[in-house]
Amino acid sequence: MTFEVQILGYGAAAPTLRHMPTSQLVNVHDKMFLVDCGEGTQVQIRKYRIKFQKIDHIFISHLHGDHFFGLIGLLSSMHLLGRTKDLTLFAPKGLQKILETQFEASETRLKFQLIYIDSKTNQRKLLFEDKTLEIYGFPMKHRIPTTGFLFIEKPRKAKIRKSFIKAYNLCIEEMVQIKNRKDVHRSNGDVISWEECTFDLEQIKSYAYCSDTAPCESVRENAKGVSLLYHEATFHSSLKDRAKSTFHTTSEDAGKIAQEAEVGKLVIGHFSSRYIDENILLNEARTYFDQTELAFEGMKLVITDKANAVRSEDMNT
Amino acid sequence: MTFEVQILGYGAAAPTLRHMPTSQLVNVHDKMFLVDCGEGTQVQIRKYRIKFQKIDHIFISHLHGDHFFGLIGLLSSMHLLGRTKDLTLFAPKGLQKILETQFEASETRLKFQLIYIDSKTNQRKLLFEDKTLEIYGFPMKHRIPTTGFLFIEKPRKAKIRKSFIKAYNLCIEEMVQIKNRKDVHRSNGDVISWEECTFDLEQIKSYAYCSDTAPCESVRENAKGVSLLYHEATFHSSLKDRAKSTFHTTSEDAGKIAQEAEVGKLVIGHFSSRYIDENILLNEARTYFDQTELAFEGMKLVITDKANAVRSEDMNT
Repeated sequence: MTFEVQILGYGAAAPTLRHMPTSQLVNVHDKMFLVDCGEGTQVQIRKYRIKFQKIDHIFISHLHGDHFFGLIGLLSSMHLLGRTKDLTLFAPKGLQKILETQFEASETRLKFQLIYIDSKTNQRKLLFEDKTLEIYGFPMKHRIPTTGFLFIEKPRKAKIRKSFIKAYNLCIEEMVQIKNRKDVHRSNGDVISWEECTFDLEQIKSYAYCSDTAPCESVRENAKGVSLLYHEATFHSSLKDRAKSTFHTTSEDAGKIAQEAEVGKLVIGHFSSRYIDENILLNEARTYFDQTELAFEGMKLVITDKANAVRSEDMNT
Repeated sequence: MTFEVQILGYGAAAPTLRHMPTSQLVNVHDKMFLVDCGEGTQVQIRKYRIKFQKIDHIFISHLHGDHFFGLIGLLSSMHLLGRTKDLTLFAPKGLQKILETQFEASETRLKFQLIYIDSKTNQRKLLFEDKTLEIYGFPMKHRIPTTGFLFIEKPRKAKIRKSFIKAYNLCIEEMVQIKNRKDVHRSNGDVISWEECTFDLEQIKSYAYCSDTAPCESVRENAKGVSLLYHEATFHSSLKDRAKSTFHTTSEDAGKIAQEAEVGKLVIGHFSSRYIDENILLNEARTYFDQTELAFEGMKLVITDKANAVRSEDMNT
């Protein structure tokens, strides 16, 4: 089952010609979720030939401009190009007024329904759920309320070993229970363990998105054991005071968090524009967590079926 | 004296990878004026190595997104990069609320003063004036209130021919009058014509910006005789009904307007994204007005000292 993250932009607030501001596309089982939407995101979406009318859910972490200034343009283009499907926005409450003020000024009456869901939370909160996926918001630690997002597959039905069906003479009801990962309790007192009867369980794939934030316990808890963690690393540890005063993270701390949370892979981004050679940040993070990569525009991270393996592709080539 | 217009973007509303939305930089006597500011303008400003802190005045024609969605990002960057100088915005009234709502949400307190001047007008209105330049707003005809902008040099002091100083035995007061283009009336009844005594007057340079609008009398009047006219030509005349219903102009009408207004040069832009080869628009406009050019990103139009001569340069090369 598809579980991919594509980096559309990962710059920090001050603009450069080298980076686009933050935006990512998360594709889980062919459902497209946009996470943050800095200025120019709609151009990036076109550049990477993504069908943007397929995006039905947009998640905005917080209301600093480099994470949402591109949203009004994207929504306007969706409208201009004939969208009629609902679109759900998981975002801080203030966003609704920001968008409506602009639609009003241009006398735009959207042809599609915008559904606003407040993403602000003090604890892990389920924001979205379908048959195979759950998306949670969780609090982070920034200058204004900021939410991290956790994408996590629902456990699939377990596969039963044929030999056990015979051995235990399982009836259909009992098999359903076992597939749903529940032990069978028979009237004679026998207990049949679902784990004993099943095999080759695929790893649950998961992704945690954490930008922007100071290092915090909530990230460590919510990103615990994820296949892939995107964490900001705005500064090198030589600027840790600056990181602290602006509520950002150093590459040292990002590496430590990945190590402590025992994630599969770490991708760092949201680098201050002062770093021309970002390897200084990569090297520092790798000191603490070897499985670290630098984000780049057009990077696609594919979470494979193998436990915690993440393959990285370059969509620019 | 410098009088240049640089095209940063000229696309119509629907975004493409070929065009940026509308924005221009007008440089008159080394004062930088930004006209419209579609999404991504700040990146274009950086691309063409323009010092954006030199921009002290921004003009927004109307509140359709492709003309102002880049403004909030540009202002935020100016703030982030330490601007303290005032900045004046000539724009429809609604813009103030749009910007303030966003600054409030991100808890941004600008370090510089934003001065809002309402650009909406039913007749030619003086918006800006300094020693050498006047900038007027004038009404155009679009779906929402839209203002055209006219940049026009003030008449410079006339130069007196030395031979006439002697011949008329001009005193200092009389010379000042003549330099200010006023005839001298002597107590003995003699009248000395300022035009007779002066020479080699430079042509007054002027520029009219007209996007977006249906063809209208106000443009013809206000662009009368300008050195350079930028006029939208969203559609070819084969789509004149579409142009009419959306309050846009065809390339046929743009050519006719330039001819009737007797301008020096016409540059057309704001093309619908349906035109892959825009020469169809150029050719049609040229049928009516030979001195027509297509806009392109990075095009610099230099109004030279020679009467109505406009030199076009490519800043991409």
